Amino acid sequence: MALALPPLTHLLPVPGFTTAVIASGIKANGDKDLLLVSMVENTTVAGLFTQNRIVAAPVTLCRVRLPAGVSRALIVNSGNANVANGPQGMQTAKAIAKAVAEALNVPEETVFTASTGVIGEALPMEKPIGAIPKLTATLNDNDWLGAAQAIMTTDTQPKAASRQIELDGKKITITGIAKGAGMIHPNMATMLAFLFTDAAISPSALQTILGDAVETTFNSVTVDGDTSTNDTLLAFASGLAENSTITDPKAADAAQFAHAINDICLELAQLLVRDGEGVTKFITITVAGAKSEADAKKVAMSVAKSPLVKTAFAGCDPNWGRILCAIGYAGVEFPVGEIDIFLGEVQIVKGGVRAPDYRETQGQEVMNREEITVLIDLKSGHASRTIWSCDLTHEYIKINADYRS
Amino acid sequence: MALALPPLTHLLPVPGFTTAVIASGIKANGDKDLLLVSMVENTTVAGLFTQNRIVAAPVTLCRVRLPAGVSRALIVNSGNANVANGPQGMQTAKAIAKAVAEALNVPEETVFTASTGVIGEALPMEKPIGAIPKLTATLNDNDWLGAAQAIMTTDTQPKAASRQIELDGKKITITGIAKGAGMIHPNMATMLAFLFTDAAISPSALQTILGDAVETTFNSVTVDGDTSTNDTLLAFASGLAENSTITDPKAADAAQFAHAINDICLELAQLLVRDGEGVTKFITITVAGAKSEADAKKVAMSVAKSPLVKTAFAGCDPNWGRILCAIGYAGVEFPVGEIDIFLGEVQIVKGGVRAPDYRETQGQEVMNREEITVLIDLKSGHASRTIWSCDLTHEYIKINADYRS
Repeated sequence: MALALPPLTHLLPVPGFTTAVIASGIKANGDKDLLLVSMVENTTVAGLFTQNRIVAAPVTLCRVRLPAGVSRALIVNSGNANVANGPQGMQTAKAIAKAVAEALNVPEETVFTASTGVIGEALPMEKPIGAIPKLTATLNDNDWLGAAQAIMTTDTQPKAASRQIELDGKKITITGIAKGAGMIHPNMATMLAFLFTDAAISPSALQTILGDAVETTFNSVTVDGDTSTNDTLLAFASGLAENSTITDPKAADAAQFAHAINDICLELAQLLVRDGEGVTKFITITVAGAKSEADAKKVAMSVAKSPLVKTAFAGCDPNWGRILCAIGYAGVEFPVGEIDIFLGEVQIVKGGVRAPDYRETQGQEVMNREEITVLIDLKSGHASRTIWSCDLTHEYIKINADYRS
Repeated sequence: MALALPPLTHLLPVPGFTTAVIASGIKANGDKDLLLVSMVENTTVAGLFTQNRIVAAPVTLCRVRLPAGVSRALIVNSGNANVANGPQGMQTAKAIAKAVAEALNVPEETVFTASTGVIGEALPMEKPIGAIPKLTATLNDNDWLGAAQAIMTTDTQPKAASRQIELDGKKITITGIAKGAGMIHPNMATMLAFLFTDAAISPSALQTILGDAVETTFNSVTVDGDTSTNDTLLAFASGLAENSTITDPKAADAAQFAHAINDICLELAQLLVRDGEGVTKFITITVAGAKSEADAKKVAMSVAKSPLVKTAFAGCDPNWGRILCAIGYAGVEFPVGEIDIFLGEVQIVKGGVRAPDYRETQGQEVMNREEITVLIDLKSGHASRTIWSCDLTHEYIKINADYRS
C-alpha cells in the first residue's frame, strides 16, 4: 500500500531512443526484470551516483565510462543489486554490458548498466545475457511505461514523467523514469532514475545541470534514511531535436533546459516518496528563517527522519511536541523562545510555545489529510529549504521484515 | 511488549536516602506519577543533561542548581514533560521544588527536579504540590522498586540496579533507577536516570566520574534515534559510608568507585534498550579494527539506527546486505574489499563479500535468538566501540502512533 500516484497518461516519446523489456528470470516471481534502452550515435550522457562507500558493480562501471560522455545503450536489471559480490560482481556487470554491445554492434564502453534489488547475492548473468537477443529484437519506440515497470522492486506503481520545452524554435522533449521504494534518503537513494531527452547538449553542460538539480530534488526527499549502494541517476541526450548545442550551462537556453530538468527531477523524487514503502501521508517540511540553507536542511531533515514524528503522522496525531523535539536536536542554533510552527494553515507553536488560539481539533483536521505541510520558522535569518517526507507505518515494517524471506 | 527484564530482586537500600511515591493525578489513568527522594545534609550531586536545544524547565532548573554541588531532595513527575510551556513551565518547576523545600525544611536551591511525559502541555502544578504533604509523610527507607515504577511512562517494566564495593574497609552501596522507553538515543535520551550512593565524594569528582561513564553507557544505546528534551542523569552521594572523601577522580579508590558507577550505568542503559518500545531483540553491535573510536561509533550507530537493519532483525531475516549498506553510508573510510562481519559466532562476510562457507541456515539460527551480536571488523586500525540497539517492530509503530491520542 502507498499513496495513489497520478496516472501516467502523458509520457512522451523521445526521438533517438528505443526501449525493450523482458522477464529474464532474475525475479523469481516471473515479473519483468530487464530494461534495454538503445540510443542513436552521438548521444551524450551525464550521471550522479550513491555516496555510500560500498557501491554496486554497475555503479563502478558507470563511473569508469561516464567521463567519455557518450552512450549508446543502457541495460538495467531489477531483482538483484549486484553489490558485495567481489570481483565476480564486476565481471558480471561487464559481461552483461558486453553482450549488449555485441548485440547492438556498438562500442562496449558506451553501454551503461544499473542494478537494483537484493544485496550480496550473485547475479546469475546467464539470465540477462540469455535474454538479450530477444530484447534487441523487440526494441520499439519508447514504451516508457513498460520501462518504468521493468525496473520496479518493492515499488507498487511505476514512476515516470515528461516535459516539453522549446529552444531555438525546436521542440525539446524530456522523459524520465525512476524507481524507489525503500532505502530512500538523500545522497541518492536506492533509487534508480533515468532521463532521456532529444536536446543537443554537451556532456559537461548536462553534468552541471544534472548536478545542480539533484540537491533540491532527489537529495531533498527521505523515506527511511537509508542511503543505498546502487543509487544511480543518468541523463541521456540524443541531440535529435537539433537545437544549437548547449555547451554553457549558464546561458539562457541552458537555464530554460535546466528548469525543465529540475522540474522533472522534482516530480520523480516526489513520486518516490508517495510510493515509499507503506506510505499513507505525503509530508512537505519547509524550514524558513534559518541562518543558512544548510541549517534549514539540517532542521527539516531532523524532523523528516524522526521515527516519533513519522509515527505521529501515521497515527494522525497532532503531537507537535515531537516536531519541536526533533527541531531541538538537529544541531542548529536558534532562539528557542521565538520559533513558530505551522501544521498546514494552522499555527500550532508561536514564540516557542503552544499558540494561544490553537485548538487540538484544528491540528487533528490537518493530520487527517493525505498531504500535509509543516512550516517551521527559526527566526534566525533568511534562508529556507524544503524536504519531502512520509509517515512510518505498520506496512513499512511488514514490507521490510519480510522482503527477502 | 518488550523483552523480559531480569527480576529486580537485589535492589539495595542506600543509607542517607528515603523515598516516597504517589499517584498525584498527572497521569489520567491513576498510575503513580510522583517520586520524592529525601537526602541527608551534605549530600553531593553531579549531573548530565540532554543536548537537545529545546529543554524542559526542570532541566534548566537543575542546570542552575547543579554548580553548588549539594542536594537535599529530588522530585520527579511522570506523565508530563513540562517542556515548551514558556515562562509558565519554569514557574511550575520552581513552585514544585519550593513546596518540597518547605515541606522538608531544606533550602529551596537544594531541591532537584525532573519531568517526563508528553511535550507542550501545561503541567497542572496544583496536582504535585497538593500531593507533597502526603509524600513527605510517607517517606520510607529506600523503596527503589516503587521509585522506579513511579517514573515510568511507556516503559513496561521498572528499571533499577544495585552494586556494592568496599573502599577503606567501608561498604559502599550504589542503587540506580531509570526510565525509557521511546526517544532513546545517545546524547542522553528521554531517559531519566538517578544514582544514589552513600559514598563520600566531592561534587567535582562525582561529576568527572559520571561524565566519563556516560559516553560508553547511556550514550552508547539507541532505540529510535530521537534525542529527547528531558534527558537527565543525576547522581547523589550522601557520604554516610564514611570512606575518606574521594576528591581526586584519578586516585585508586576513585577508580574502583568509577568502575562501579560505569557498571551500573551500563546495566541501566541496557535495560532501557531491552524495554525499548516494541523491542523483541537486544542487539549488541561491536565495530573493531577502526582508525578511531569515533569512527567505530559512527559505523556502529549507522547500523544500529538503520530502519532497514532494524526491521530485518524484527523479521528474523539474516539480510546482511542491509548491514553492509549501513556500514557503507556511515561516512567512514575503510577498505571495502577487506571487511569481515560476524552475526553471532557465524562469519557472514569475509573480505567484503559473502563468506564462502556461510550458509543461510546458520544466519537464520542466530537471527531467531532474542540476544544477537554483530561484530564488524573494518580492517583499518585498532580502535573499537560497542553500541546496544534493538529491532523496529509493529509494536513500536502501534505505541507511537497511538501514545497521546
